[in-house]
Amino acid sequence: MSDRTLTLGIDIGGTKIAGGLVDDSGGVLDCVRRETPGHAIEAVENAIVSVVDELCDRANTGAHGNVVGVGIGAAGWVSTDRSTVLFSPHLAWRDTPLRADLTERMSLPVWVDNDANAAAWAEYRFGAARGHDTVACVTLGTGIGGGVISGGRLQRGAFGVAGEWGHTRVVPDGRRCVCGNRGCWEQYASGRALARAGQELIEVAPAAASALLAAVNGDGSQLTGADVAAAALAGDLAAIELVREVGAWLGEGIVTIAMIVDPSVIVVGGGVGALGELLLGPARERFAVALPGRGYRPAPDIVEASLGADAGMIGAADLARNKLG
Amino acid sequence: MSDRTLTLGIDIGGTKIAGGLVDDSGGVLDCVRRETPGHAIEAVENAIVSVVDELCDRANTGAHGNVVGVGIGAAGWVSTDRSTVLFSPHLAWRDTPLRADLTERMSLPVWVDNDANAAAWAEYRFGAARGHDTVACVTLGTGIGGGVISGGRLQRGAFGVAGEWGHTRVVPDGRRCVCGNRGCWEQYASGRALARAGQELIEVAPAAASALLAAVNGDGSQLTGADVAAAALAGDLAAIELVREVGAWLGEGIVTIAMIVDPSVIVVGGGVGALGELLLGPARERFAVALPGRGYRPAPDIVEASLGADAGMIGAADLARNKLG
Repeated sequence: MSDRTLTLGIDIGGTKIAGGLVDDSGGVLDCVRRETPGHAIEAVENAIVSVVDELCDRANTGAHGNVVGVGIGAAGWVSTDRSTVLFSPHLAWRDTPLRADLTERMSLPVWVDNDANAAAWAEYRFGAARGHDTVACVTLGTGIGGGVISGGRLQRGAFGVAGEWGHTRVVPDGRRCVCGNRGCWEQYASGRALARAGQELIEVAPAAASALLAAVNGDGSQLTGADVAAAALAGDLAAIELVREVGAWLGEGIVTIAMIVDPSVIVVGGGVGALGELLLGPARERFAVALPGRGYRPAPDIVEASLGADAGMIGAADLARNKLG
Repeated sequence: MSDRTLTLGIDIGGTKIAGGLVDDSGGVLDCVRRETPGHAIEAVENAIVSVVDELCDRANTGAHGNVVGVGIGAAGWVSTDRSTVLFSPHLAWRDTPLRADLTERMSLPVWVDNDANAAAWAEYRFGAARGHDTVACVTLGTGIGGGVISGGRLQRGAFGVAGEWGHTRVVPDGRRCVCGNRGCWEQYASGRALARAGQELIEVAPAAASALLAAVNGDGSQLTGADVAAAALAGDLAAIELVREVGAWLGEGIVTIAMIVDPSVIVVGGGVGALGELLLGPARERFAVALPGRGYRPAPDIVEASLGADAGMIGAADLARNKLG
């Protein structure tokens, strides 16, 4: 039987906040989801505090147990002391002392982690990467996040920003990225890439894009990656082809991870990752032909994440628990 | 005072074998250098045994101390149990049980490591990366090797092939690489890249390449990276420009290392690395403009290796010592 010491995990992305009450075996006992209220620092902090208060109130009322700490998984690069968000490509954080700001407003100890690090940790502890010693996790949402576990430890790097392969360059002078650079992997293999591919298809070949056009009532500029994903899952051949293209780019970038990190498993999660085999099939195909030394070296398994949208909150909660333990 | 327990380190590259008698503080007490006798497995093994015998004989004669083990740094990908060379882009090893082969012929325990891992370990223990916790080392020779140290441990990955960034793709459909793929980083930032750039200059603009042509008696096909490096160090402006180009590609790839590994220092070693500021200046310039989130995250120092051509043997010897300790 698990002890009843509980932690909260709060996952903050560019579009959504998800908070969970998590036990020591990664079980989510309660959960709150909100839209991210714009990108302003204060609005985001208010939303976090409100989610924490709501979860604490309900935990006390429901006698779930003792909430002992809060882990934040933030869509940004976090300092090694787990206090400061150095930079966020998708939100307004720039050297923002998130931990201090939140600690002031809460009666619980708080730690901050990168959201994709938190998700990777959750998959390693409780999900698709359980039992592996060297793990890489690729989180495909609007952009690409990443996390590496090796020897039982989250590899944060010297400055807290390891595993940020979304912003490695895959195409010289390539597409402009939200980080300011050009050619970043996340511009080719992410929700944003899927949306862009769909919008291009609508513009150039509207007859082939009828299902996508229908999804946005004829306004291509409104098309999101989620729309393309939904059309692909519903069997639309044009959307499936777009997912194949993005999947091939996913496989291409996974080669880089295999060459540098050399994990035994690469877990693909996040909203776009939920496309499953439609995406992972083409990724594995591309990976198989692009891996240097193929046939003469073991290759990692490429698998779908198993914790879905809960991974970030579960991991953030478990990382906070570790800090307390 | 150091103990007098000694190990041998043997560094085997595509063109050279270097063996050293090494003490526990990384000091090289004796040294043997040979050309690699072709790429055939048996010839290379014979050469290793002969280097080991010669060093042992001289150690005994000179009363240097007790030789207790041999570390091999091999230009190939080595299994995690440090026994088998899985693959070598530059030599004939394919699933070759190098450790067993050598153990049979020696009276000393033997371990095998990747040559660039060995060099990285040496720089971490005794060289330019001393005192850093998270270290990446880029070894620029004919190709590019790499090694990562984090938390006091060489990061070998799940299958022994971590840190192989020389074969990450930097240009889609780019130049053909010895590994069989296209667009690998080592085709743009290595001795081979420098030779190629020099040969192209000779072919297209011979008037600008007079110093390079003189170095090879008018036969551009004989030009090596070392020739271009020597011309640059001697002040030839055309050669310096070629080194600048290669240096910019070096900086470009170092961004990928910073994003994925996030070390506090990146050590550049190997024969081409010995170009020093001629190469590192342009690499740092490129790195400074290409690092995502620059200005909002700490950046690693990019420094020249300090152990020169001895790094591989020193590291291989020290890694064998650790195994025995």
